[in-house]
Formats: sequence, C-alpha cells, structure tokens
Amino acid sequence: MESLEAYRKLEKKFKRISSLSDALALLSWDSQTIMPSGASEVRAEQLATLSVLRHEEITSSLISDLLAKIDSEVLTDWQRANVREIERVYKNATALSPEIIDAHSRARHNCETVWRIARRDNRFDLVVDPLGELLEITKEVAAVKAGKFNMQPYDALLDEYEPGAKAENLDTIFNYLEPKLIHLIENVLEQQKKTEYTVSPFPVTEKKQKKLGLKLMAQQGFNFQKGRLDKSAHPFSGGIPDDVRITTRYDEQDWASSLMGVIHETGHALYEQGLPKEWRGQPVGDARGMVLHESQSLTLEMQACRSREFFEFLAPVIADEFDVSGKEWSASALHQKCLRITPNFIRVDADELTYPLHVILRYRLEQSLLSGDLSVKELPLAWNDMFMKSFGFRPTNDKDGCLQDIHWYDGAFGYFPTYTLGAMAAAQLFSAVVKVEPKILSKLKQGDFSDLLVWLRENVHSWGSYYSTDEIMERATGSPLDPIFYISHLKSRYMQ
Amino acid sequence: MESLEAYRKLEKKFKRISSLSDALALLSWDSQTIMPSGASEVRAEQLATLSVLRHEEITSSLISDLLAKIDSEVLTDWQRANVREIERVYKNATALSPEIIDAHSRARHNCETVWRIARRDNRFDLVVDPLGELLEITKEVAAVKAGKFNMQPYDALLDEYEPGAKAENLDTIFNYLEPKLIHLIENVLEQQKKTEYTVSPFPVTEKKQKKLGLKLMAQQGFNFQKGRLDKSAHPFSGGIPDDVRITTRYDEQDWASSLMGVIHETGHALYEQGLPKEWRGQPVGDARGMVLHESQSLTLEMQACRSREFFEFLAPVIADEFDVSGKEWSASALHQKCLRITPNFIRVDADELTYPLHVILRYRLEQSLLSGDLSVKELPLAWNDMFMKSFGFRPTNDKDGCLQDIHWYDGAFGYFPTYTLGAMAAAQLFSAVVKVEPKILSKLKQGDFSDLLVWLRENVHSWGSYYSTDEIMERATGSPLDPIFYISHLKSRYMQ
Repeated sequence: MESLEAYRKLEKKFKRISSLSDALALLSWDSQTIMPSGASEVRAEQLATLSVLRHEEITSSLISDLLAKIDSEVLTDWQRANVREIERVYKNATALSPEIIDAHSRARHNCETVWRIARRDNRFDLVVDPLGELLEITKEVAAVKAGKFNMQPYDALLDEYEPGAKAENLDTIFNYLEPKLIHLIENVLEQQKKTEYTVSPFPVTEKKQKKLGLKLMAQQGFNFQKGRLDKSAHPFSGGIPDDVRITTRYDEQDWASSLMGVIHETGHALYEQGLPKEWRGQPVGDARGMVLHESQSLTLEMQACRSREFFEFLAPVIADEFDVSGKEWSASALHQKCLRITPNFIRVDADELTYPLHVILRYRLEQSLLSGDLSVKELPLAWNDMFMKSFGFRPTNDKDGCLQDIHWYDGAFGYFPTYTLGAMAAAQLFSAVVKVEPKILSKLKQGDFSDLLVWLRENVHSWGSYYSTDEIMERATGSPLDPIFYISHLKSRYMQ
Repeated sequence: MESLEAYRKLEKKFKRISSLSDALALLSWDSQTIMPSGASEVRAEQLATLSVLRHEEITSSLISDLLAKIDSEVLTDWQRANVREIERVYKNATALSPEIIDAHSRARHNCETVWRIARRDNRFDLVVDPLGELLEITKEVAAVKAGKFNMQPYDALLDEYEPGAKAENLDTIFNYLEPKLIHLIENVLEQQKKTEYTVSPFPVTEKKQKKLGLKLMAQQGFNFQKGRLDKSAHPFSGGIPDDVRITTRYDEQDWASSLMGVIHETGHALYEQGLPKEWRGQPVGDARGMVLHESQSLTLEMQACRSREFFEFLAPVIADEFDVSGKEWSASALHQKCLRITPNFIRVDADELTYPLHVILRYRLEQSLLSGDLSVKELPLAWNDMFMKSFGFRPTNDKDGCLQDIHWYDGAFGYFPTYTLGAMAAAQLFSAVVKVEPKILSKLKQGDFSDLLVWLRENVHSWGSYYSTDEIMERATGSPLDPIFYISHLKSRYMQ
C-alpha cells in the first residue's frame, strides 16, 4: 500500500517536471521560429531559469526517498519500467555536482559563441582555447559518470543520447561499414559517369512548396490537431507529443531540399505523436533515444520516400502543384535525380551514401580528442588527412572541414554516431516491414502510408521507453541492430 | 552591508519569479493564437503547473526573511520603491491559504466552463449554482484580504486590478458621470437625427487590413524588434515588455473595427515597451495597474486616433491602401461615421459615449451581488431593469444581458470599473499633453505620433510602478484622476 502510494507520488512529481520540460520546449521552438529578434536576451534568461528549476525538481531528494519505498512486486510491468526510467533520469541528473554542471554549461556557451565567429571567418585559431577548455570539462563529466555508472568514459557520453550504446559495438559496426562504403561509392561514381545527367534548376515559390509539404504531411499521417509546420533557419522537430512543431526552410532554387526536409521532420513528428498516450509526462512514455528517433525520420525520408514506388505517386502531384510537364518531371527522371550521389565536404549537404562516411570520421576524431591522442591544435590537419583517406579529396579550408558543425563546439560529444545508427535502424525496419506487409510498396504508389504507419506505431512508437533500442529492433525485425541490412539496402538501391 | 546584500538577493529572487511569469505569458499567448486545438488539455496542465511553481516562489519564507533584513536607509529611491512593491506582491500572495486559492481557482474554472454553454444557449438557469458558489468564495477572498489589509471587502477585490482604488471614490465619480452621460447621449441622438447618414459596407480583404494595421503600428512607434502582431478570436495584448504580442481579428465586412482594435492594442503595447528598462523583472518595473494600462490604449484609440486631425492623415492612406475614392472616403465623412453613436445591448460593441454606462451598470450590480443585496437568481431582472433606466430600452434575452461578458463567470469582480477610469485618465492625459505641446494635433495630421509618444514615455511609461496612479496623473496633468476632463472631452467631441 505504502509502496503504491510512493509510486503515485513519483508519477505526480514527474508530471510536474514534464510540464516544465514542455514549457522549455515551447520557449525554445518560439525562439527559433517567430520570436522578435530583440527578445533573445530575455528569452535566454527564461530558458536558463526554467532549466535550473527543472534540474532542482529532478534532483530533489524526495525522488530517492520515494524510490527507496517502492517494492516493484506490486507494480504492473509498465509501472516497473517507468520506475527503471525514473531511476535512470534521477541518477544521471544527480551524478554531477552543481559546480561541474555550471562550468560545463558556461564552457559550452562560451565555445559556441566563439565558434560562430570562427566559422564565419574561417579562423580555427580562435576556438583552440575555448574548445580545449570545453574538452577538459567534458572529460571530467565523462570520468565522473563513468566512475559512478561503471562504464567507459566515452560510453558515458554516448549514453546521454542513446542509453546503453557502447563504443565497443560502434567500432565493430563502423569497421565493417567503412571499407564497404568506400568501395560502393567508387563503384557508383564509376557507374554514374556512364549516364547522362543535366541539372536544370527550376524555381518554385515558397507558397507552392509549403502547400506541397502540407499535403504530403497529411498523406503521411501527421495529425494537425496536435502539431504545426513553420519556418526556421535550420529545420528541426520540436514541441511535445501532443503539440509537435516541425519546421523547414524554403530555397526557391531548390524545392527538393525543402520537401525532403519536411518529410524527414514528419518522420520525427510521427514518432512523437505515436508515443503511448497513457504514459504522457512519464519517463517511460518518452521516445527511447536518438537512434530510434533518427530511424523514424529516415524510414520516411530515405526508405519510403526515396523508393521508386513513392516517386510514381509524387511525380503527378508535383506536375499538378508546380504546373510542369515533360520528360524531366517523370517519376523515373525525378527519382534518378534524387539518387544521384555527389561526394562533398559538407555533412548536412551529403547524399545518403556518403553521409555515413562523414559520421565515421567525426566519431573517430572525437574519440581521439577525448582520449588525449589528438590535441585540439592538431585537429584541422587530422581532419583533412582522414577526409582525404575516406573521400579521395582534401578540404582546402576549415569552414569546409572541422569548423563546419556546431556539435563539438556546443559540447555534444557522443551525438554524431546516432545519425548512422539511425540510418541503419531505418534500413533494417523497412526491410522487415516490407517482408511482413509486401503491399506497402504498392500502396506507396498511391501515396498511401497508412499500413506503414500502423506497423511503425505497433512496433516502435507505442513502446516509448518500455524496451531498449535493441529489444525494440529485435521484436520488430527479428534481430538487434545489424549493419548488414543497411549495406544490403545501399547496394540494392545504388548498384543497378 | 547585510542590508544591501539582502536587497540583492530579493532582486535575484524576483528575477527568477519574473522568468516564470514570462513563460506563463508566452504559453498563454500561444494558446490563444497558434496552438493546435488538440493541445489544449496538456497546455492547461502546463499553465497550472507553472502557476503553482510561481506561487510557491512568491510565497517563499525567504522573501519575508530578506525583507526583514533590509534597512531602507541604505537604498536608492527606486530600490526603496521596489521593496515597497515586493512587499505588496508578497502580502497579496500570502494573504490567502492554499485551500482558498485552490477552491477559488476551481470555482472560477467550473463557472466559466458552464457559462460558455449558458451564453451559447441563452440559459441563465445553468449558471445560477456555479456563479453562486463562485460568489461565495469570492466573498471569502475579499473578507480575508479586507481583514488583513484593513480595507473594505470590495476594495480588496479592486486592489488586485488597480492598487489603491476605493469604492468610495468610484461612487463619487460614477454618481457624477451617470446623469451627465445620459443627458449627453439624449442630446447627441437628437442631433444625429438631423444629419443624413447612410451605411454602405465595403468589404476589405484580411491581407489589406493587416498591411494597414502594421503600417499604423510602425507610425505610432511600435518596436517590431520587440513585439509582433498576430490573429486571435478576441484581440488582446500579451507577452512581456521585451516581446509584446498584440492580436486582432479581421472582419472583411468591417475593416474599421479591426483597425481600431489594432490601434487600441498598440496603445497597451507602447506602455509595455516604454517601461523602465533598468527595472525589467522587478515589481517596480511593472505597469502600474489596469487604469493606466487602459488609459494608454485609449489615449491612442479614443483620443489621438479619433481626432479630426488624425483622420486627415488616415483618409488618403486608406484611399491608397484600399484603392478607393469619392466623397464617402473623405476625412470628414470617415470621421463623422466613426463618431456616430448607437446605443446597444453589448458592451464590447459600444461606442465611446455609451460605453461608460455599460460599466457603471456592472459596477453597481457587482457591488450588490457581493454585499448580498442581490441574489444570483435576481440578477437577470435587476440587470434588465437597470439597463432600461440607463438606456431607455430593455434586453429581451440574457445573452444580450447579464450573460454577455466572461468577467464575473471567470471571477473577475472589481475589474469592470477600470475600463472607465482608464477612459477618464486618457481624456485627462490627452488634454494635458495638448496644452503643453499644442503642435501634437497638427503633427497627427502628418501621422506623426513621436511627440505624443515622447511625452507619454516621460510622464507615464518610464515610471513603471514607482508612483501610484494618482501621483502619476498629478505629476503629468496637475491633478489626480478627475472626471471633469472626461465629460468636457465628450461634450466637445459630440456636441457640435
């Protein structure tokens, strides 16, 4: 009886914490979309204050008192899983002293601020000191957590983005992937040379692009009673499950990039909207981690919507919406254009095939930085050498090299690998669903995503954080995360 | 030394409280403008949680401990005023027990919910019980505060909207105004009969109306780096001084109402944007009260922008924006139309002259309800009788009578009088500024609001809550709030 009561109190506490997180999510969305520029200073203060309040709530000793009173025997399976997730959240939040948290947050803020100028002016020298300081405090964070949770320091960082992920497995996966990718890219480039290809840019107004984006979102099952599409400098998926706010940007010269951006964010949104309703506001009801999140955006963007079948639906829609016709707007022409690969310096502009090479490069470099094998000063050269090895050409400046991404300069070490793990998971999930529901591909020809969505809801979304990522993958596909599906997908798509 | 340190800690505490209020303001703005409908339930929870957190912060015993340590001798004048306002906020927040606050909030929520149906279906009987309960708890709130602050119960309610306001003064003012207004309205109606008047509705698209609204806002000094204009079901001014969010609605058949709405909310916005920057987040930096707030919206809407001079600027702008011409679009025709009065059942549709009668009626009735002289059941009849006496015609249903406004059903007893006090203050301020800066009127002919704004900034906005409303009025106009300016303004405008 006392045990159940303690559990109820814990739920109530986390409902309260969840409301604070919700408010933070809205304030942050607003600041990236519609906030007037002059409010940025006061908004930063609001975000900082609410984050502190949230941290105070999550680290309250009441939580450990209540956890101690709970006998998990009297709980249901989901309640037990919720307690497990609550413990995880609490342990992570209390692992670090307020002093380290504060120093970490300052170092991040400072380094990110300097990085904006450094990238703009191509001046790596400017960030050497702030990045060095950030790296030192990040090592401390990793060491403290590693000690408390009995894990490797780098794994302690990974764990924040993908609970349970381990560098040992990542090494195996990336060592397997890398040579295969390099080989595949060489072959595809060779093959591409043989086919004629002309680029004819076709400007499309923002209004038309937006209309098409909204149409596809609806088709894919986005619930507009519980979310919105807006504009921002960098596309993202924000908000909360009952109010998902995705954004895109519009380049009138490049309609395809905005469209694929909307589809990508819609994948994230569908995951959020499909999380278990009865567990809203409880840790077990949250999305599992970054790998599954990215897998959901990529199942839509890279699997379903880069299929030949989807383009058969898309081509006439585009012809209608953009009022165009002719051979270059046929399904096969559009599809061919979309699968063209172009190795490039910049990760965010990368195609499906070269993207994982960008990630593997960053993964290896961040490990060297954290282990001390590589100093911050040596980073540009190490980057360029490694890039040369993977891609066969060499960045000529740091803007196109180690200064391009915000992640490290914002302290997000351990985040990059989740992109490629997500792409792997997407390939594996899609190959599984096509096996059990073969009609899914023919339905995509009609723009019908319903069967795909139902399967994702049942096998991924509705489980929230009840299972681990590997458990979800295993139940859904018969196997834990395995790069073999990914390579097999890439081969069959790009080698004709 | 210890005293100053205690003061600094208080400031810090209130900065934190202010961030919570800011977040509440944004969440509330968002829910009334762009939030997807399916998020209303979770948003209500977020608002409730943040309000509770805010209340916990404001009632923290730390505040009284710090207040006790402060020797006001060592403080500057503004710091002393800030301490005075902090004490006021703290005393008000701690006056009521959590049980009363909770019961009050539930009764309000319950009554408002029922009222929405009752108004829609014209069923006063539905709200008799919930309004009765809300009235009882409101009386309790008033009694507790009256006891603690040594004031009359009704004054304790007034005080929430307008610190220091007293029914004794309101009675004097309203007893003076009412017969004069009734007499004036009779004369104006008589006079209006003599002039020809035809209504020819002219539909204007939302896009054109919005463009004109934004143009006027800029002209009037609205800082778009620190605010936005959006759409909502009911126009309001929300947000915070560094991010003021005003809204309007667009009726294509009635462009003038949207335009005057934008001007009204811009007046509120200019007050917020003009509050003392160095006191952001501190109680002394907040707007003084509802009377001055309303006076700022009405100085713009009813004084400056209903002047003949402003219409000389407005008419060619409208001709240009709406692409119209002809006699009925001349400055004098538009002005005449705008000053036409039409006694009506509905307060929010009322013209300048009949509006205060609506307010006086509500003021008298809410006093009777609170004193117990009038029971809830007797309200409809009492309303209709009193309306008949003031207006000379009688509501035929309660939707057009005592069910029309949300205020009572949402527990806002003591709020109505501030509308008319605000209109009085606006007339008094405008007559003062025109006396010291006579060129203001001729500048309005060019759409130049700068001198008016400078004067309002110096005499009202920049003082925040440093002075009381009467002190501000006296310093700005040479006299405390006095209805004589209001009556004189109405006479000179409407009796030609």
